[in-house]
Amino acid sequence: MSQLDNILRDLVVANRILSNEDVVDAYGHISVRHPDNPKRFFMSRSLAPELVERHDLIEFDQEGQPVNDKRQPYLERFIHAAIFEARPDITAVVHAHAEDTLPFGIVSKPLEPVIHSGSFIGGKVPVWDIRKKFGDTDLLVRNMAQGRDLAKTMAKGNVALMRGHGFASAARSLIEVVRLSVYLPRNARALMRAKQLGGAVKYLSPGEIDARNRGYSPHSPETWRAWEYWANKAGCGHMLTRHGG
Amino acid sequence: MSQLDNILRDLVVANRILSNEDVVDAYGHISVRHPDNPKRFFMSRSLAPELVERHDLIEFDQEGQPVNDKRQPYLERFIHAAIFEARPDITAVVHAHAEDTLPFGIVSKPLEPVIHSGSFIGGKVPVWDIRKKFGDTDLLVRNMAQGRDLAKTMAKGNVALMRGHGFASAARSLIEVVRLSVYLPRNARALMRAKQLGGAVKYLSPGEIDARNRGYSPHSPETWRAWEYWANKAGCGHMLTRHGG
Amino acid sequence: MSQLDNILRDLVVANRILSNEDVVDAYGHISVRHPDNPKRFFMSRSLAPELVERHDLIEFDQEGQPVNDKRQPYLERFIHAAIFEARPDITAVVHAHAEDTLPFGIVSKPLEPVIHSGSFIGGKVPVWDIRKKFGDTDLLVRNMAQGRDLAKTMAKGNVALMRGHGFASAARSLIEVVRLSVYLPRNARALMRAKQLGGAVKYLSPGEIDARNRGYSPHSPETWRAWEYWANKAGCGHMLTRHGG
Amino acid sequence: MSQLDNILRDLVVANRILSNEDVVDAYGHISVRHPDNPKRFFMSRSLAPELVERHDLIEFDQEGQPVNDKRQPYLERFIHAAIFEARPDITAVVHAHAEDTLPFGIVSKPLEPVIHSGSFIGGKVPVWDIRKKFGDTDLLVRNMAQGRDLAKTMAKGNVALMRGHGFASAARSLIEVVRLSVYLPRNARALMRAKQLGGAVKYLSPGEIDARNRGYSPHSPETWRAWEYWANKAGCGHMLTRHGG
Repeated sequence: MSQLDNILRDLVVANRILSNEDVVDAYGHISVRHPDNPKRFFMSRSLAPELVERHDLIEFDQEGQPVNDKRQPYLERFIHAAIFEARPDITAVVHAHAEDTLPFGIVSKPLEPVIHSGSFIGGKVPVWDIRKKFGDTDLLVRNMAQGRDLAKTMAKGNVALMRGHGFASAARSLIEVVRLSVYLPRNARALMRAKQLGGAVKYLSPGEIDARNRGYSPHSPETWRAWEYWANKAGCGHMLTRHGG
Repeated sequence: MSQLDNILRDLVVANRILSNEDVVDAYGHISVRHPDNPKRFFMSRSLAPELVERHDLIEFDQEGQPVNDKRQPYLERFIHAAIFEARPDITAVVHAHAEDTLPFGIVSKPLEPVIHSGSFIGGKVPVWDIRKKFGDTDLLVRNMAQGRDLAKTMAKGNVALMRGHGFASAARSLIEVVRLSVYLPRNARALMRAKQLGGAVKYLSPGEIDARNRGYSPHSPETWRAWEYWANKAGCGHMLTRHGG
Repeated sequence: MSQLDNILRDLVVANRILSNEDVVDAYGHISVRHPDNPKRFFMSRSLAPELVERHDLIEFDQEGQPVNDKRQPYLERFIHAAIFEARPDITAVVHAHAEDTLPFGIVSKPLEPVIHSGSFIGGKVPVWDIRKKFGDTDLLVRNMAQGRDLAKTMAKGNVALMRGHGFASAARSLIEVVRLSVYLPRNARALMRAKQLGGAVKYLSPGEIDARNRGYSPHSPETWRAWEYWANKAGCGHMLTRHGG
Repeated sequence: MSQLDNILRDLVVANRILSNEDVVDAYGHISVRHPDNPKRFFMSRSLAPELVERHDLIEFDQEGQPVNDKRQPYLERFIHAAIFEARPDITAVVHAHAEDTLPFGIVSKPLEPVIHSGSFIGGKVPVWDIRKKFGDTDLLVRNMAQGRDLAKTMAKGNVALMRGHGFASAARSLIEVVRLSVYLPRNARALMRAKQLGGAVKYLSPGEIDARNRGYSPHSPETWRAWEYWANKAGCGHMLTRHGG
């Protein structure tokens, strides 16, 4: 298979994993940049991620418009277009409403990494409040101006919480953005429960966060192990584009 | 199929979805107004919603009495009859005991929307305490007087909590009352956890709630996407009366 | 089938329900009094409740000893023997470790009914601490003296918490002791979360608890509805000894 | 089958149980000492425990190096090697990230046994912080020096928490280290929730912990009952090396 074929197949697997791991439900989406054209990206038509198959994927341009495709796209595709635009280092983007990330967007208590698998969220996660610049909206990112404002809040980081809504995350590969998005709610739960126990919280240090970023790559056996596990649990182990050993 | 056939089929799907999404268990029920006779409505006989099939549905009159049907009805059918009576704008009603809504009925801390998918509960959710007017009861809504008192508390809103018991919700379509009832406990969890983190809670503003009500309809692709997803998860995707695309 | 056959079949179903509803895991057990000999009762041999079949049931005498049966019994069968001895009004007993009941046995905060389905636990649930009378033990009820002390704490009630261990519950029928045991942890969760929200808790009043006891019977359609639902979920709907309609 | 065959088969079952009981996910591992050579142990190659089969097991030497095997080992195999080295009384070791143990490693609130099934964690569980001796790392135990430091913190106990990472546990048999690892998070939840209720916590007394250690063995019917139950739930009941009765 071509590189593009592999990436689109991985995108289907990623949709199923995010659904099975409760990161997305009927809502939430994941996209990947076109490997041959950095101004384009792929994402499903408007469909629950659990149900996405290869033929549901649509190609989008840099303004978040479908390329020669009349099917219904996700309303919030501008989150993806704006992050791909602002961040040439980024290959894959997730937007989701994972439940345990929500409290940190609703009150002013920063979400920070406290567990090693949460290190990839970086330091304090910024919170984007659509109301600040756009007033009373339905909270959805419905155009490029809103998407760009969100991307500005994310800045050089990997994730931004969206007040009363969810989060956007970004990484250099599909496998990494899935891992980040699965462990983000777990880190949130560990931090919430530690705070309930009381006393000073031991966050990961900047040095630890850096050491972890250096220690992992999208091609390491450790990263692949999780992808293979999640795909099997989600019933699409047969769609893996390579196998461990 | 006729409009009535479609509606009754949707009512079966709605029963299965509410069960699969943990909104109801053996108890709790959902009803829909008769499309041709606004003084009548349909609801299952006394049966766990997960097990409801087309032939379990009973037609009820405006006093909550079965029409030419000897089978055992739900004891609390008066919740439905009274809300249909008080609210001509309403087409579908749910009564359920979803666990995470219960705390807000037990203590005086109002349940309010904090996440975008919770916007449809409106503003502060009123709490109906059967004890206030009817003294010591078994907490069940066993007659029209109790049902009407509950409907009065719900007033023009979409939902009322019932102290120590559960909630009643209402909407202009089956699909919307299901969505409202699924996201009500999620909004409750997000609010509970935000309060545990501490600090000021950012609720949805009235303008945001209005904007969301304007942005969605029972026929929009976004609303349908969730219905299709939930039906598939509940094992009744084959019963959908239309399909996305 | 004879009455005894029906009761033993119901006992198998009850084992499976308690396991599927997370009331028991590998540990915990349920017993039923012999319908023809009030000094005898039936319970499984030492086996995880999920795996119990008809031929695993053993008859026990009033001292908790197997009658003509060499198979390994549960260590804590004395809980059952002692409650059957102390309470002629009781037909069925459960002992379990359901997780969300545990906190109320560990700290001095009484578990009380706050939701209508929790009414059957009565008022404040007493806590039995084996250490008080028996000093340092392995916390297991290993003889009749310990079982009788527990039964004394339960007194005329339906349930007693066991500090650092779990609970014992009792009712006039299998169907009722299962319902009580399934809703006990749910009531515990509702109360824990209400307390976390803060403010005065509205418990069920004594009059409400009484009204609920009057309103339900083991033979009512409402009681049966839950039994049928739980049995179906546990994969043993085909073993039901009667059917709704 | 030989003793070694039985042990390796049990090790496969243990991998599946730990995964099904949410103690491990893609990460975490379990090992067993070689029955004929105390300087060797067995553990899977780098693979999610749910997927481990007999042919995935690798033999390791006392420095944590694979013996005549080129396949990718787990990075953190030094946890196992160092504990086997320090503790001749130990036959099996688990390392995992079970979510509800994490808060106790992040704040200074000791994890102690409060429920009878949690007694096997001993008294206050020590917390190992890799930063104390090794500075800013990626938190992984990547060499024998780190493994030995962790084993030193565990000392003569059965478990050590690892700050921001997870825990290591050890026991005299596979069946016991699995039980300990499954009940550790349950004990953590019971303690967290008891603390949220407020008031003095009644921990197990040292005498109770001792009494429980005396009361159980890897060969008792009660210990076996849980192993059989967990194996069945994990879909590998057919791999059990003996059967109850």
